Amino acid sequence: MSDINKIYELSEKYQNSADKIEIEQAENALNEELLNYGAGSVGLAQINTIAGDIEYNSEKVLKCINHAQNIGLDLVVFPELTLAGCPVGDAILRYPLFGDTNVKWLKEIAKLVTKTTAVVGFLEPADEKNNRFYSSVAVLGEGKILNIIRRYVVDKNFEFNDCKYIISSGNSTITEINVNGIKYGISIGDDYLSEDKFSGQNFDIIINCCASVTYPQKEKSKSDKLSVLAQRYSVPVIYVNQVGAVDTASFAGSSSVFGKEGELFARAKGFDEQFLIINPYKNLGKIYPLIKGLELTAKDNSEFSLDYKPDMERTYNILIQGIKDYFGKTGFKRAVLGLSGGLDSTVCAVLLAAALGKENVFGVSMPSKITSDTSKSDAKVLAQNLGIGFTEAPIKEMFDTTNNCLQKLFTDVEKNWDCRYKKSYTPDNIQARARATFLWCVSNEFGSCLPIATSDKSEAYMGYATINGDMSGGFAPIADVTKTKLFALARWMNENRSQKNVIPQSVIEKRPGAELAINPETGKPLIAEDALMPYEFLDEVIWRIENKHQSYDDMLNSEFLYEKSHKITSEQKQQWLEKFYRRMGTALYKKSIMPPYVIVDSPLYNFKQPITSGRINYKSETEEIIRDKIQKML
Amino acid sequence: MSDINKIYELSEKYQNSADKIEIEQAENALNEELLNYGAGSVGLAQINTIAGDIEYNSEKVLKCINHAQNIGLDLVVFPELTLAGCPVGDAILRYPLFGDTNVKWLKEIAKLVTKTTAVVGFLEPADEKNNRFYSSVAVLGEGKILNIIRRYVVDKNFEFNDCKYIISSGNSTITEINVNGIKYGISIGDDYLSEDKFSGQNFDIIINCCASVTYPQKEKSKSDKLSVLAQRYSVPVIYVNQVGAVDTASFAGSSSVFGKEGELFARAKGFDEQFLIINPYKNLGKIYPLIKGLELTAKDNSEFSLDYKPDMERTYNILIQGIKDYFGKTGFKRAVLGLSGGLDSTVCAVLLAAALGKENVFGVSMPSKITSDTSKSDAKVLAQNLGIGFTEAPIKEMFDTTNNCLQKLFTDVEKNWDCRYKKSYTPDNIQARARATFLWCVSNEFGSCLPIATSDKSEAYMGYATINGDMSGGFAPIADVTKTKLFALARWMNENRSQKNVIPQSVIEKRPGAELAINPETGKPLIAEDALMPYEFLDEVIWRIENKHQSYDDMLNSEFLYEKSHKITSEQKQQWLEKFYRRMGTALYKKSIMPPYVIVDSPLYNFKQPITSGRINYKSETEEIIRDKIQKML
Repeated sequence: MSDINKIYELSEKYQNSADKIEIEQAENALNEELLNYGAGSVGLAQINTIAGDIEYNSEKVLKCINHAQNIGLDLVVFPELTLAGCPVGDAILRYPLFGDTNVKWLKEIAKLVTKTTAVVGFLEPADEKNNRFYSSVAVLGEGKILNIIRRYVVDKNFEFNDCKYIISSGNSTITEINVNGIKYGISIGDDYLSEDKFSGQNFDIIINCCASVTYPQKEKSKSDKLSVLAQRYSVPVIYVNQVGAVDTASFAGSSSVFGKEGELFARAKGFDEQFLIINPYKNLGKIYPLIKGLELTAKDNSEFSLDYKPDMERTYNILIQGIKDYFGKTGFKRAVLGLSGGLDSTVCAVLLAAALGKENVFGVSMPSKITSDTSKSDAKVLAQNLGIGFTEAPIKEMFDTTNNCLQKLFTDVEKNWDCRYKKSYTPDNIQARARATFLWCVSNEFGSCLPIATSDKSEAYMGYATINGDMSGGFAPIADVTKTKLFALARWMNENRSQKNVIPQSVIEKRPGAELAINPETGKPLIAEDALMPYEFLDEVIWRIENKHQSYDDMLNSEFLYEKSHKITSEQKQQWLEKFYRRMGTALYKKSIMPPYVIVDSPLYNFKQPITSGRINYKSETEEIIRDKIQKML
Repeated sequence: MSDINKIYELSEKYQNSADKIEIEQAENALNEELLNYGAGSVGLAQINTIAGDIEYNSEKVLKCINHAQNIGLDLVVFPELTLAGCPVGDAILRYPLFGDTNVKWLKEIAKLVTKTTAVVGFLEPADEKNNRFYSSVAVLGEGKILNIIRRYVVDKNFEFNDCKYIISSGNSTITEINVNGIKYGISIGDDYLSEDKFSGQNFDIIINCCASVTYPQKEKSKSDKLSVLAQRYSVPVIYVNQVGAVDTASFAGSSSVFGKEGELFARAKGFDEQFLIINPYKNLGKIYPLIKGLELTAKDNSEFSLDYKPDMERTYNILIQGIKDYFGKTGFKRAVLGLSGGLDSTVCAVLLAAALGKENVFGVSMPSKITSDTSKSDAKVLAQNLGIGFTEAPIKEMFDTTNNCLQKLFTDVEKNWDCRYKKSYTPDNIQARARATFLWCVSNEFGSCLPIATSDKSEAYMGYATINGDMSGGFAPIADVTKTKLFALARWMNENRSQKNVIPQSVIEKRPGAELAINPETGKPLIAEDALMPYEFLDEVIWRIENKHQSYDDMLNSEFLYEKSHKITSEQKQQWLEKFYRRMGTALYKKSIMPPYVIVDSPLYNFKQPITSGRINYKSETEEIIRDKIQKML
């Protein structure tokens, strides 16, 4: 075995072990191995912080610094804003000591940095009274703060309003630090985008400390730019990125090192913490495999496709990390969810069991008289396959009691209001609400337990979910995954998880429906696509809005994938598009009270549009139409 | 009667009439009267637009322009962003034709402007592909667009992310237009703050078109600055402001004109649409009374006080406008709410009846075995006083059925999880959820009806509300009003509304409690203050966070109003503060799914803090404490 492999083996042992003696042995051995490498050995501390929890973050930083010192690294580099966590958003307004406290911790940490140099991201007060800060990194060494470097490029796209609080340094030059005879130029966040800033200086290595929210099709372009930067100045570029989830925002990790010819030299794991040791001068590096999907580019997404496979590993990892961190960082441990035997709750159950452990997930089948036998047995089989807790709690009594009580209430209301619907959805909604009541009450009765909202993205756009029903919960794992992608994810999980075929085949094969009502035309439970439109069509509309920024008219004039395999009239298409926009407008309210979720596919899913603007006319209007309308107004 | 009074009388008649002939007569008479005034007569079109609804807004604009032409005004001035509505937020991303469409409407409107000049705010595409726009005003006259003027000062504090999309003109000089021999300098939004821009030019009058969200203690400072501007350049300043509510954001109207010595010359109504005719050259102006509370300054708010009277009229008006516009602009008409006989639901009922009309409000008393007779009769008396619909729907059966069903479910879950609480809040929550189920089902069964969430601000900060229970609804009218302020509002409404003493005295006198559980110590329903802390103390904590940006330690070291009248130990105070911060952290999730509400007291109430940052340690730490903690970490 070569020395390099030994180093990474020891490093993995150190990181995976909980045994003190084993850890010490691994550190000693690493120290000995690294002696052969001399100057230029760097640790990339890709850690998962908690926004605002300075003490928690400091402990992680200290642990990494100690490790670097124990094994004799020149330098240990952390992501941007490590001590404060990122993003913190308006926490700054509720916690006026924020900047002050993270500086205090920084100073105390600095005293312990004597045998290595540490580059630590923190929130530097610029004008704390007015809540203005720099995103800075401190260079720690010789038991003190040696230097402070401030981020220059600050744009409006920070998550959680952080852009309100973080200002630019105003100084575009890149600061240099000298460690063991090597000159490192230090940049923060998007500073690397402003390539010219690096010119005219003689760095040996460029460092970028980053906390960059991951989006589909973004990572490749980011690494390409870093690679070009390395080539342009003919020096290695070290990029240290945050990992973990903060509510909707996810960080992919995958910190990387590029050689002076722009070639990928080393890369840390995706969606996982890691302390990666490298030395670009002595050829010490390891490329951990990239999570499939992170390499996709905008070009791979230029056409709508139902072939979601290339993006499945990324999707799965981002969901698992999102669930794990939402629960872990809020202090919750357990999840209870309804298992309907349908796709949404099934996928949620698999993800939750993987993220929280099967012993922490409890599934409840809550059949009504409409629930089919297949649905009931699918729910049970799934729970057995996963090994999660399971029971059946029929809702018949709840339904009957609620319905009875309501009849008198409705009669009383009708005395005042003559607007009672001829055909009402009340019975459908009673069922969904009875189920949510059960789940919320379980979460009230048992410690550290959150109920799960199983709504998916296609339904959320259409408002096709019941408030205080299936839309309700403490977390909504799949709220940013469309229905067609969920089918693909179910299949992918059946094939690619270590335990195969956890999901019963019938769940993947049946057409989705909430089993809340009988379709009078078929005598069978209502199918969602009959109430809405085909999911393939619906999901392409969503895709076109989020990825192509298309208007109603653009869509009318584009050929949909669905149209290639199905004959539909232009009237039918128009009708579906109109229904989409109408429902999207009225669903704005529902979206505003959607439980927390993780963004998988589109930052635009976090839309903040006034609910009172829901009746916008999305269609384009010719001058003639406008003139006609004006004539009628006069 | 002098001519001036006649003009305002005719103008009111025109605006309040629905009768075509009456309107025409008023316009003809106004035209005749205004002939005496000659050049310089201007109409301030203070209108209430719908964000994104260009057609709706255009119709209002056209109506005002026609009126200006019919009565022979030189000029009619609209607020900023009139055609597009403001704020629109991320609607821009879903509606790519936004800019394009409002320009098309603008062009068609321009053709009809032949006998007056109109200054109309709109959203001007700068780089529409990248969603960049100017906030511009078009000068319309002679049947065409004569000029386009762009806003220069654009800050980060736009509501709804509008700052992401709106860019500065980059040109700081003020454009001048000449109408009937008078030179008007036109500024937009915060442009007036940059006073120097006006220098070196020879305007006769300065115009400011604005869409400025109203906050407590802001309006006075805004008018002071406008008055100073008038003085400095010794010219009248005309300020036209938007009115109405867009979800949480409210606009106060109160458009004003300042004379050349800075004196207030004319002012439109607050929180109401108005077309105000003025002529600063000919002394034609009227000062409508200012809504009390809009004149308050930061100085009036320098100490926490329980004397809310000076702010009551503003509070009442902003709430009424907020309810009216949320319902009106989303298309809802009716509200159904639970009437518990408590303060929160009582205040909500009064506000809803005032905003929507008593015939559109239905109150349901939903007593449980804990509900006292007083509560039941208070609810009934209130409904009778208000003349709203009312019935009683006891929840005993719902409670019993739910409770029965849950016992088996809990036993099953307990087989897997050993974390069942000894003392559970489940029975309390079942009651709140049964009530919400009734209300949501009424809204499902009857047209255009929203259920109301009656949570108040003190409870929302503490998470002292039940998810899918009292926290649940289609709108939360009083979510930004603290409990002590609600008491004051109840008293104020009893004294100041045309119908006196609508609210039974006992509602105002009893100590608040949810009547969900019995306090074992007293044998009586649990009082909220016993579970939390005294509301006077709690509300001062909230006030100090939102207004003073104070930390835990600042508060510990400040004397609270409550301490002046009650002896409390420092341990007690510390305990309450700790409880506050702990509960605020865990309530972040609940806050994230709070239904839409209107901001009354603090823009900071719209906090966007990561839920996963809820376990922040808000206390300050000395270096010694930090050093100790670090020692333990090593």
